[in-house]
Amino acid sequence: MVTQMAGPDPMALAVEAAWAFQGCTFPNPAVGAAVTDASGGILAVAAHEKAGGPHAEVLALQHAFALLTSDTAILALVDSGAIHDYLLAHHNGCFASCAIHVSLEPCSHHGKTPSCARLLAGVRMGRVVYAAADPNAEAAGGASILSEAGIRVEHQPSKAADDLIFPFVQWQTKPFVTFKWAQRLDGTIDGGIISGSESRCFVHAMRDAADLLVIGGNTVRTDRPTLDARMVEGKAPDILILSKRDDFDRTIPLFNVPGRKVMIASDLTAMDRYRNILVEGGPGMFESLQSRCDMYLCFVAPSSGGTIRFLQKRKQFEIRHLSRSGKDVKQWMVNG
Amino acid sequence: MVTQMAGPDPMALAVEAAWAFQGCTFPNPAVGAAVTDASGGILAVAAHEKAGGPHAEVLALQHAFALLTSDTAILALVDSGAIHDYLLAHHNGCFASCAIHVSLEPCSHHGKTPSCARLLAGVRMGRVVYAAADPNAEAAGGASILSEAGIRVEHQPSKAADDLIFPFVQWQTKPFVTFKWAQRLDGTIDGGIISGSESRCFVHAMRDAADLLVIGGNTVRTDRPTLDARMVEGKAPDILILSKRDDFDRTIPLFNVPGRKVMIASDLTAMDRYRNILVEGGPGMFESLQSRCDMYLCFVAPSSGGTIRFLQKRKQFEIRHLSRSGKDVKQWMVNG
Repeated sequence: MVTQMAGPDPMALAVEAAWAFQGCTFPNPAVGAAVTDASGGILAVAAHEKAGGPHAEVLALQHAFALLTSDTAILALVDSGAIHDYLLAHHNGCFASCAIHVSLEPCSHHGKTPSCARLLAGVRMGRVVYAAADPNAEAAGGASILSEAGIRVEHQPSKAADDLIFPFVQWQTKPFVTFKWAQRLDGTIDGGIISGSESRCFVHAMRDAADLLVIGGNTVRTDRPTLDARMVEGKAPDILILSKRDDFDRTIPLFNVPGRKVMIASDLTAMDRYRNILVEGGPGMFESLQSRCDMYLCFVAPSSGGTIRFLQKRKQFEIRHLSRSGKDVKQWMVNG
Repeated sequence: MVTQMAGPDPMALAVEAAWAFQGCTFPNPAVGAAVTDASGGILAVAAHEKAGGPHAEVLALQHAFALLTSDTAILALVDSGAIHDYLLAHHNGCFASCAIHVSLEPCSHHGKTPSCARLLAGVRMGRVVYAAADPNAEAAGGASILSEAGIRVEHQPSKAADDLIFPFVQWQTKPFVTFKWAQRLDGTIDGGIISGSESRCFVHAMRDAADLLVIGGNTVRTDRPTLDARMVEGKAPDILILSKRDDFDRTIPLFNVPGRKVMIASDLTAMDRYRNILVEGGPGMFESLQSRCDMYLCFVAPSSGGTIRFLQKRKQFEIRHLSRSGKDVKQWMVNG
């Protein structure tokens, strides 16, 4: 029989929240945070959405503060620095018997946003529990800052938290390659639009965060796609068109996005100059890029009716995260 | 861009918890409950697992009580009546500033377990929020009991809560039919075992709760299955074998489970005498039973490599719930 948890696990909720933005946070990691009160009740769960935006800890503190103090003015703030300042000025010890559970060690450095470790020390958080240690030399050291400030810190490593930052750990030293496809429940990909608008919007958010998008020559010739991030008003990534021939119509929008570099090559060497690479390809690309793929993102529409299957050979995956994406299923997978 | 909730929604967590036991609670509905503390922090989330076992409210109160009072002795109790008695004797007003969020109106009657409405009144719950009104005449009236006892009650109907009890509402008056199948991500079903042990175990829990299992004649001839609920030590449902011919080997275990009725028929009229019907069939059964199916349960293994697809025609589903089931995906769907 299925068994259920005794109560909601704040760290599990934090990791779950973070996965919603996996692929969208580059060069930052996907991070989630949950704040619990004196009884262990969960006050807030939040995730880092995008580099430059507030870190997970800041968003979780923002919502927990509003619940604890009934001062909802803080909810109108969107700038990370402004939320930091408000919390430091008004916390009045409200977090003294609270704990924050973060999937990754709170950052030590003042980058695009102020340091989370200093914020947590400043608001006198009762207890800080973090799962993964920060593998980034510049951002690491948050736990030490907290300990030195007299905050109770607990390191509770977990596979779930390590899986969450697998892309982040890899792009510290080498390219991370995500292969994305959309199919129906019957495995087919032909016969019109497959995935819904939420799924396509998410792919645009991933393109916005990717530094390189790899695509097949036939897709460019046939679909004449723009491959930008207009649905999220984001930047268009550089493009590598995998093709033996250079016979492309240079007037299509793909070639005319300002600031974008478009490369045409019959091999993947250009990938080595990038860190967060998204591949959008068909069954042929899938077979030929297998050895270079680190993670797979598959959207599955709850429908059937095509004739060409995306997966055409024997293959075993392991699901790393599963969620709904509008009417579709969204599943992150690795080789099984 | 993807957006995130301000904080965890207790009713959403309650509904989510309940879906884990959808199909396993007959003749009871699937129900979830979450208890929040004075700050709105979530103390406990629980679901009703099986008829005869504690209701969702009882399990949620059990865990919340342990957190609020640090009296963990209550966690050792498994009998619903024993948990009721312990809570009534020891609550000491600990729930006065708490709220319970229940996907369905707390039951009014003392059936296999004592009344949840009377328990919530007895422990002086600060506030009771329920989503769906109870459609069962015998169990309804819980909200009135609570109001009359001076408990603050709020009715907050939602589509999510109505979707959750769709089977329960239907089997009040007519049979509810669930079609279950397992396939790979590429849509195929041939070439050996597909789903993992968690998924197969869940199907046994569903068989235990079903009063009738419908199966095709060819499956019985070829696979010689037992079709019982041994993985959960449950009861074996009655069987309807859809077949024009009666040429079955009566020595196979299927025909020799004590207390089970096995029918062989070329039509579905026998279904009208049952309420919670599970169909386990192949593509042919799927096509011929379409007009009688109310919900679909599809397990998708993250693999590929077969040749025969389960879905062979154009079809549109709507996903009602999605979760992981061990290594597999488990999705509840209705006609889209």
